[in-house]
Amino acid sequence: MRVSALVADLYELTMTAGYHVSGQGLSTFELFVRELPPTRAYLVVAGIDQVLDYLEQLSFAPDEIAYLRSVPALANVPPSFFEDYLRRFRFTGEVWAVAEGTPVFAQQPILRVTAPAGEAQLIETALLTIVGFQTSIASKAARVVEGAQGRPVVEFGSRRAHGPEAARYAARAAYLAGCAGTSNVEAGFLFGIPVSGTMAHSWVMSFADELDALRTFASVHGPNTVFVIDTYDPLVAVRRIVDAGLRPSGVRLDSGDLVALSRAVRQVLDAGGLRETRVFASGDLDEYRVAALIAARAPIDAFGVGSSLSTSNDAPALGAVYKLIEIERDGVRVPTMKLSPGKRLYPGRKQVWRLVEEGVMRQDVVALADETGPPGATPLLTCVMRGGRRLDRRPALLTARDRCAAERARLPLSVRTLRDADRYPVIMSARLERLAEDAARRLS
Amino acid sequence: MRVSALVADLYELTMTAGYHVSGQGLSTFELFVRELPPTRAYLVVAGIDQVLDYLEQLSFAPDEIAYLRSVPALANVPPSFFEDYLRRFRFTGEVWAVAEGTPVFAQQPILRVTAPAGEAQLIETALLTIVGFQTSIASKAARVVEGAQGRPVVEFGSRRAHGPEAARYAARAAYLAGCAGTSNVEAGFLFGIPVSGTMAHSWVMSFADELDALRTFASVHGPNTVFVIDTYDPLVAVRRIVDAGLRPSGVRLDSGDLVALSRAVRQVLDAGGLRETRVFASGDLDEYRVAALIAARAPIDAFGVGSSLSTSNDAPALGAVYKLIEIERDGVRVPTMKLSPGKRLYPGRKQVWRLVEEGVMRQDVVALADETGPPGATPLLTCVMRGGRRLDRRPALLTARDRCAAERARLPLSVRTLRDADRYPVIMSARLERLAEDAARRLS
Repeated sequence: MRVSALVADLYELTMTAGYHVSGQGLSTFELFVRELPPTRAYLVVAGIDQVLDYLEQLSFAPDEIAYLRSVPALANVPPSFFEDYLRRFRFTGEVWAVAEGTPVFAQQPILRVTAPAGEAQLIETALLTIVGFQTSIASKAARVVEGAQGRPVVEFGSRRAHGPEAARYAARAAYLAGCAGTSNVEAGFLFGIPVSGTMAHSWVMSFADELDALRTFASVHGPNTVFVIDTYDPLVAVRRIVDAGLRPSGVRLDSGDLVALSRAVRQVLDAGGLRETRVFASGDLDEYRVAALIAARAPIDAFGVGSSLSTSNDAPALGAVYKLIEIERDGVRVPTMKLSPGKRLYPGRKQVWRLVEEGVMRQDVVALADETGPPGATPLLTCVMRGGRRLDRRPALLTARDRCAAERARLPLSVRTLRDADRYPVIMSARLERLAEDAARRLS
Repeated sequence: MRVSALVADLYELTMTAGYHVSGQGLSTFELFVRELPPTRAYLVVAGIDQVLDYLEQLSFAPDEIAYLRSVPALANVPPSFFEDYLRRFRFTGEVWAVAEGTPVFAQQPILRVTAPAGEAQLIETALLTIVGFQTSIASKAARVVEGAQGRPVVEFGSRRAHGPEAARYAARAAYLAGCAGTSNVEAGFLFGIPVSGTMAHSWVMSFADELDALRTFASVHGPNTVFVIDTYDPLVAVRRIVDAGLRPSGVRLDSGDLVALSRAVRQVLDAGGLRETRVFASGDLDEYRVAALIAARAPIDAFGVGSSLSTSNDAPALGAVYKLIEIERDGVRVPTMKLSPGKRLYPGRKQVWRLVEEGVMRQDVVALADETGPPGATPLLTCVMRGGRRLDRRPALLTARDRCAAERARLPLSVRTLRDADRYPVIMSARLERLAEDAARRLS
């Protein structure tokens, strides 16, 4: 699952070539989200693990270098760039990161990279596409889990994800953020996520008789199976199941009025002595529909959520950016910032301090990295890579999942709520504000 | 770039195991889009090439089989499924497909697969995620290209795509649908797509002086470079470029009022004798903003379009489905269909006939595969794989791109338009309607 060094916008390479020729000091970039999407009051960090794998393995294969030599925009670059610099290229920098599963907000660095300018620049596109995507799915999943109020949610969205790799990492991000499992078998294989799923409508349709289809399935897989019951008429199906003495572990509704149907199905099951048989619902669900089903007291035991989750359909592109915030010039660290209209940024290396009181998050302070945080506050960024090597062994996905559950529980309820959420208080330290003002004055 | 056989929802495997045990005839599935997203009047087919690669290479590795044996939902399956069936598994079926780059509409099969039931079922998730995603990006790209009215559009969205693989295939789909190139270097390497890009704001910020940054860049890369000019003040930047005698091939605006700025910048360039220097625009563009810039006669020579394109942000999940439409029962082909409310489908193997008159598409007829189409109409589905092997060599991406351009030119203007497009007439043949009615009567 190597991520190629060519996963980069071409300008990363023209700039890296530029630094190779013109000389390069250490650069520091921070990855953050400028503004939250309107339907998100917090984000859940994901993707750090894949980023660290990518950075550890980063190198150029000979055929990749040969291709780069053929790119017109690199035609003027001296041969030493290809023959020496790219051939030996390794990422040697330092990375600070917020742990996967942690809630974060706009204008808070999720990753901070310090490396020779060419290295720090080259990795921009890969870092953004990995962290931006996985964070957007984890953030959506946290909402769906919130909507389900403790009932299990299974990620069912692989078929609508943006390709096989996106499906796999969407499953991982969803599990990290609290989903109970996924339908994606590859994610089960690679990440140890519980997988679930039994039959589609096509199974039922491939038999002349619906009951035959269900009975045959049970004969192959044993009683611990979930029957899909809405290929034709769900109530007819469930009555026939009861009458035939079948005892599925669950039945799944994938269409129709899920409140009315789940009640009617539950009644038939209970009346038939199938009190242990659970009712599952799927089909175009999202956090709002799941919450509405719970509010209507629909007797649904678990939810399968697909497209909305695996594509974060209401916010499919998180505005993650990777900004140069400090350079080394003549051996001196200089904070940098950009002034384009509407895009003002905070210069300098930062740390995020989080204040939790009585189990509830009260406020975050974004400060310069060398400031001390407010009393009792915890820093979110820790050093995870130095000299291009991970400092710790790979943290377990379950650890990140537990962290997410614990940290989400600390969010103010008014921030966790699905609609009209409050804005969580994030302030900039006085020194950071002063530095930004000084830089703005200097540049304008 | 092997797509794993585990890229599947678990139920594909429980069903495949079910068919292995209970016996299986030939099944036929069709992949299509049930309804177009509200902001799409047509789709552009993409992803067929990756699907055929996947099908040709499909097999289970020993560690994948070992994992499957550990999955609780497969605990009851006899060992022969793992030791014999999966170990020898190959896709042996027949595939009909609409060629990449062809415009299609709702309820038209894009792919038709006929294979032993277990094989045809197993591949569902992979086919949907590949074709659904790439088709959604190609369809979005066609709109952006339409908006640009012949001026070049470059796909810049890798950083917002759903991971590295999604970035790569988004670049391919965008190029197929008419974009002039991409910033994604890996897509250039793998697919031969022209790549472009020169410098980011970070390059400028890493120098104490903006002009120094630009001059240094030009000294490395020669005059054929594009300067980003909005790191601080674009008009100041462009005046300094002119005064310094620099002669970039282009300048890029990435923020601000692009109409006013492009005019002002053009004026300074022209007055300074830099009539050959082109003006590029990027920054949160989509088809509507591009069209508005053209309508306002902004002197912009080419557009870089990012997030909206690489995520198809207004329709990030295409409702592609893969439905069983025929089975073989006791050696007889039986058309099948599902009856769930709001989800009625057309049974039987289908062909799409397209009628073009005087260079304009007039009407499509979806008919049964054994019907003859209307006089002069062309069938869209052709057989591309038999016995699990491609029938033709891999078609060139450029061929698909040319096809898309030619076919888009045949779409009625009222369907191509970006807003309030007409619905293109697609009718079902009389025999298909009758078959659907018969099946509905039989099932209800």
